Amino acid sequence: MFDKKYIIPADALKLILDAVPGVLSSESIRIEECLGRITASDIYSIEDLPGFARSAVDGYAVKASDTYGARETLPAYIKVKDEVFMGLQPLFEVGAGEAARIPTGGMMPSGTDAVIMIEHAQIVSDSEIEVLRPAAFGENVIQPDEDIKKGAIVLGRGQKLRPQDLGALAGLGILEAEVVRKPLVSIISTGDEIVPHGSSVEPGQVRDINSFTLAGLISEEGGLAVKKGIFRDGFDTIKRALDSAAADSDIVLIIGGTSVGVRDMTADIINDSGYGGVLFHGVALKPGKPLIAGIVNDRPVFGLPGHPAAVVICFDTFVRPIISKMLGIDNSRTFRRFLNARMSKGVASAAGRQDHVRVHIETEDSGGYTAVPVMGKSGLITTLVRADGVVVIPRNKLGLDAGEDVTVNLF
Amino acid sequence: MFDKKYIIPADALKLILDAVPGVLSSESIRIEECLGRITASDIYSIEDLPGFARSAVDGYAVKASDTYGARETLPAYIKVKDEVFMGLQPLFEVGAGEAARIPTGGMMPSGTDAVIMIEHAQIVSDSEIEVLRPAAFGENVIQPDEDIKKGAIVLGRGQKLRPQDLGALAGLGILEAEVVRKPLVSIISTGDEIVPHGSSVEPGQVRDINSFTLAGLISEEGGLAVKKGIFRDGFDTIKRALDSAAADSDIVLIIGGTSVGVRDMTADIINDSGYGGVLFHGVALKPGKPLIAGIVNDRPVFGLPGHPAAVVICFDTFVRPIISKMLGIDNSRTFRRFLNARMSKGVASAAGRQDHVRVHIETEDSGGYTAVPVMGKSGLITTLVRADGVVVIPRNKLGLDAGEDVTVNLF
Repeated sequence: MFDKKYIIPADALKLILDAVPGVLSSESIRIEECLGRITASDIYSIEDLPGFARSAVDGYAVKASDTYGARETLPAYIKVKDEVFMGLQPLFEVGAGEAARIPTGGMMPSGTDAVIMIEHAQIVSDSEIEVLRPAAFGENVIQPDEDIKKGAIVLGRGQKLRPQDLGALAGLGILEAEVVRKPLVSIISTGDEIVPHGSSVEPGQVRDINSFTLAGLISEEGGLAVKKGIFRDGFDTIKRALDSAAADSDIVLIIGGTSVGVRDMTADIINDSGYGGVLFHGVALKPGKPLIAGIVNDRPVFGLPGHPAAVVICFDTFVRPIISKMLGIDNSRTFRRFLNARMSKGVASAAGRQDHVRVHIETEDSGGYTAVPVMGKSGLITTLVRADGVVVIPRNKLGLDAGEDVTVNLF
Repeated sequence: MFDKKYIIPADALKLILDAVPGVLSSESIRIEECLGRITASDIYSIEDLPGFARSAVDGYAVKASDTYGARETLPAYIKVKDEVFMGLQPLFEVGAGEAARIPTGGMMPSGTDAVIMIEHAQIVSDSEIEVLRPAAFGENVIQPDEDIKKGAIVLGRGQKLRPQDLGALAGLGILEAEVVRKPLVSIISTGDEIVPHGSSVEPGQVRDINSFTLAGLISEEGGLAVKKGIFRDGFDTIKRALDSAAADSDIVLIIGGTSVGVRDMTADIINDSGYGGVLFHGVALKPGKPLIAGIVNDRPVFGLPGHPAAVVICFDTFVRPIISKMLGIDNSRTFRRFLNARMSKGVASAAGRQDHVRVHIETEDSGGYTAVPVMGKSGLITTLVRADGVVVIPRNKLGLDAGEDVTVNLF
């Protein structure tokens, strides 16, 4: 169970993804609150939209066949019988050789099947127009089911709801949508040197950084962060915190314990907390090598190294895909934010290790982008503040050359 | 003031951007609530971070000069005097030829200036180690101001606060950040055919779609959407709604009025509402041609055409940059979400008009992307639901060829 050799990141991710049961349960939410939420099932339309034939332009509703053969030199003369008003059902009938004035969005009156645009008609009198070119059957008309057909799937399962998706649901009169509930991600901070936000720091102490960063990352990915607090380093204390968190959350993140003794203790605690235990301990990843992952109470548990950069890279590489699986996100319509850039200088990387290089982006005069590696120890939060994204060096590649084309995963 | 000829989008945007005074006022917000907010001013550090010299590794704190010349064949013998504990200031002094055990993050004891990694030391006894290679001055030590120097700018003005930025603020003990207040964007829906969410629709009527889409777009861009309601088409009704909205919001969006008479009325109302008036009426843009923009009470006011696709494109092209200016966003570190793709088929475009083609993205087996134009009238909300983004055809380009490389602005 406990393996000291470093697993490669792809294998590590597979191990932990396979141990995650699947999509979480769903909840019904008012669509006003659904922006960015994930659909839990296919959403079907229970009616046609718009539900009636509408004009797509300002003009004259006619029977198309009355205009066949019309041209500038031989216009069709059509009697303007009546007018359609927005939002009202026209109660009159339009007969042969007749038309009705109609605004964009107006309901097509009985007896009509096309609309002549204002620009293609000339007014002869209050009650007559010349039509200068023929209209095809259905021209400038939105059919009753042209936007959405009754029974059709409006939105598939696993879609992240965007502004226009909410518009479509509103258009169908859907008041609430069934979305996957947000994964609860508990954050357990450990480390005798960590003081909580708002407390004064004594020499040897530092303020809690990582739980703020993680809470933001969790929220951006669609999870709900629960800060459990800062716990003194100690087997029983951390075990109690873990058992409690594993009972009421979907993912547990234990931060800190970058020192060897504490790291091993985190692994022992995970192994001690019921079946499952440690899946891997140590990954061929930089930063993030000391990462621990395991299963407690069927929940994925991570022991994240305490360096701020390692926290961000481990989250991105392992926790994000798990949240995504729990949310059931359809990856075929999800695109990472990235940028193509050229490296400003070379970066070395050890064989067998996947390196995540933090880079700052500079815009070239040509409009292209240069990726400038951000130097500094992974324990420095400012290396992440200065960075705009990350370039991944795969484990079978020995670094990057100056001028090399790279893909930057943007933060 | 009132100009019937179609202005080109870039000129239209400049007109309206020039009329926007600048960055809004700021507010002080707890950093837990600051994700995605924009900094109102440069944020300086009032202290050094970490504030004391820390070890970056697990090992032995030494005076570097005691290890000079050490090698495997001639190790330096050093006495282990004491141990540093996390979070505590070591109260002992380390003398010449002495060391102290230290964990990652531990405070460097007095008299030491480098750390020997555990891996590079061999334990001779409980109180003595062999050092197998020399440590340089400062090696494996994070200096007191190495992360952030007192007085340095941690975050510049106009930065969108990301998870790691909040981490840095937390690390400095900053409890609240000064961020630009969210622009209030009022939405006035018009159209006698529009019924509110939750009401039943009669023939000729449709439900409100656009205010839901717009509220989502506004929220995504960092604004605060205020739905003012649905107003009957009528000069006095809409003028009252506009005057009230212009008095208490930063941007006013009037939706609907796609029919000629109503469009002209919206322009007349904007012209009637004090100085400023209409800046442009009609843009060489598809979809979105009938767009009106003006200034009322120093606020930008838009008359958006009611077609759902036009609403989204006009928002993206004109309203988004205004929100961005009001928020003072530093564009040098803001990157659009885009994707490089190949067109699945050709798309025609009229000369002189900027076309925004909605596309669906398909992932090729090679890992590349194909952009498939989404067909359908701009009045159909589902054209936007099916689309993953937009390809812009500039006004001096006559369409796109099948197989052409394009940049997709992702939704």
